[in-house]
Amino acid sequence: MTETPYLLLDEDKVRRNIARLRSHLDALGTPLRPHVKTAKSVDVAKLLFDGGTGPITVSTLREAEAFADAGFTDIVYAVGIAPAKLDRVLALRQRGVDLVVLLDSVAQATAVAEASRAAGTAIPALVEVDCDGHRGGVLPGSPEVVAIAEELADGARLRGVLAHAGESYFCYTREALVAAAEAERAAAVRVAEDLRAAGHDCPVVSIGSTPTAHAVTDLTGVTEVRAGNFVFFDLVMAGLGVCSPEDLALSVVVTVIGHRPEKGWIMTDGGWMATSRDRGTARQPVDQGYGLVAALDGGIYPDLLMTDASQEHGTLSMREGSDRPLPDLPVGTRVRVLPNHACATAAQHDSYQVGASTWRRVNGW
Amino acid sequence: MTETPYLLLDEDKVRRNIARLRSHLDALGTPLRPHVKTAKSVDVAKLLFDGGTGPITVSTLREAEAFADAGFTDIVYAVGIAPAKLDRVLALRQRGVDLVVLLDSVAQATAVAEASRAAGTAIPALVEVDCDGHRGGVLPGSPEVVAIAEELADGARLRGVLAHAGESYFCYTREALVAAAEAERAAAVRVAEDLRAAGHDCPVVSIGSTPTAHAVTDLTGVTEVRAGNFVFFDLVMAGLGVCSPEDLALSVVVTVIGHRPEKGWIMTDGGWMATSRDRGTARQPVDQGYGLVAALDGGIYPDLLMTDASQEHGTLSMREGSDRPLPDLPVGTRVRVLPNHACATAAQHDSYQVGASTWRRVNGW
Repeated sequence: MTETPYLLLDEDKVRRNIARLRSHLDALGTPLRPHVKTAKSVDVAKLLFDGGTGPITVSTLREAEAFADAGFTDIVYAVGIAPAKLDRVLALRQRGVDLVVLLDSVAQATAVAEASRAAGTAIPALVEVDCDGHRGGVLPGSPEVVAIAEELADGARLRGVLAHAGESYFCYTREALVAAAEAERAAAVRVAEDLRAAGHDCPVVSIGSTPTAHAVTDLTGVTEVRAGNFVFFDLVMAGLGVCSPEDLALSVVVTVIGHRPEKGWIMTDGGWMATSRDRGTARQPVDQGYGLVAALDGGIYPDLLMTDASQEHGTLSMREGSDRPLPDLPVGTRVRVLPNHACATAAQHDSYQVGASTWRRVNGW
Repeated sequence: MTETPYLLLDEDKVRRNIARLRSHLDALGTPLRPHVKTAKSVDVAKLLFDGGTGPITVSTLREAEAFADAGFTDIVYAVGIAPAKLDRVLALRQRGVDLVVLLDSVAQATAVAEASRAAGTAIPALVEVDCDGHRGGVLPGSPEVVAIAEELADGARLRGVLAHAGESYFCYTREALVAAAEAERAAAVRVAEDLRAAGHDCPVVSIGSTPTAHAVTDLTGVTEVRAGNFVFFDLVMAGLGVCSPEDLALSVVVTVIGHRPEKGWIMTDGGWMATSRDRGTARQPVDQGYGLVAALDGGIYPDLLMTDASQEHGTLSMREGSDRPLPDLPVGTRVRVLPNHACATAAQHDSYQVGASTWRRVNGW
């Protein structure tokens, strides 16, 4: 029996979550380039491609290398490139992996072009587009867009544009999600058209986030959609209405180690080391603490939350204002904690338990 | 050159932080049983014992096993025991490791006594004492204290009592810290005396936390002091006045990957995956965001904070209200981020860079 705390993965739910997004995007006629940063698992990625390989997005070169080892050859590294990482990019490309980098400045384009010339091979790059002021990217209409393309032309190669609607994580209505998806699409398509108008090939128009990928209704001009979290989902996604708590494929199994009845606390051996410090639902309308608590069979205990965490201790108690009694969970009882943020919780572990199998994660950089 | 993001450890500062606490406790005549849960590194632990081994505290059985492999034989596992873990406890004891478990209920004492009888060896246990309502533990004066000791007597062995002043992390004056330390001492000693009065041997009286270990002025009746965070320190400890930001031995090295001058942002390749989601200073008088930013040589940029984080992106910007200009940090520049919570930040990595050496961590359970 695996010792607690550990990550439990429900493979049926993963398959169902994948089928749902695939079906939506198939209807819109646009391929999916899943982001493997959530699961960081070749086994999970194989569920995305019926046991085979396909186009993926990665968040680290370590992921790119591990997935290349597993036969994945079509990879976008979707974090703005740091010049010192171009040697590893080139090494992967020399192995036959079509690894594409991301950038949003002339300074990065200069570094990519120089590395391309030095290596005698054109590194392909996507220009990051800012569609909602969330993070990096060039603004649609900015003159920097064409300047980057011109700088790349001297040895490297423009592959296209990429946008990510990070602000969709704060959209609480169907209408707001659809609008965020359309803004993401429109920004990426606009920049691609500007590049084409300036005489640059721009074959790829890549957009996506889990909320917008599920909400999007029009993908005109888009060549691929990215999403990562959807394979597992989490309480933040449930809070946005993108899924229900019953869709969550990932949970942390913990053991009851004590009780403080006078405080209404049940203590467990799963603290923030097992769940992460991510409290994404704290800024949502319904704060789920460190997570909803379910029985080992998956049935959620109404109003029972993991409300506090030390490094290796979790505190379970009833949601504030609840009139339900604390369930009777003796020392030694195992329960599941459903996470706020699957990407962060999974990252605290090196593997998943899936039935009797152990699926490894690719952590680190 | 190590690629970013990575953990940089300043060995001189670690040595200085260790010498400071050792000197304080030497003056009080009480030995230190350091908690290895922060560093989770045999190399760091050896600095604690001048290259040798000594008594340690662990937060996981994985740590106990790894430190046993490295020759440490005097270990307290300071998380309330889950009965299913007793097999691993026994396996370590059979290797000659004096591994001691912690408990705060008759139910756990029953499990420890049963496992002891079944194995034909008495597992030693400490009774956890609640000194400040922070987490688990029995209350001083509670009849459960003696009931636990009596239950243990049937095959296992009472080793003593243990208290941890977790609420000291919310004490913002020297007087409050000294009072927390005295409350921790008094609670543990009181329970030890109650056990002795009931006819039980109680050789160990163990107390400690990083804030109280530095503040304590009287250790009468205490046989050992535990602390863990002090080897690295962090911004939460600096916010409590236990150390200064210049004492922080741990930082995350990140690379600048972009700029959003119109927003006052510098983007880096170090997101929450590299720093953790821990925002411990958010509830302190001075919120340090995801961390203070320093140059690679260690010099802190006044008012420059890591203010936001995605999985692999960090945002640096000036502290709200600052009238200083954003420093000029071109793409490719490396900087350090000083963490809120060293235990959580270090846990996002599998090793430390220490000069030209790599020191491995013992992650997982």
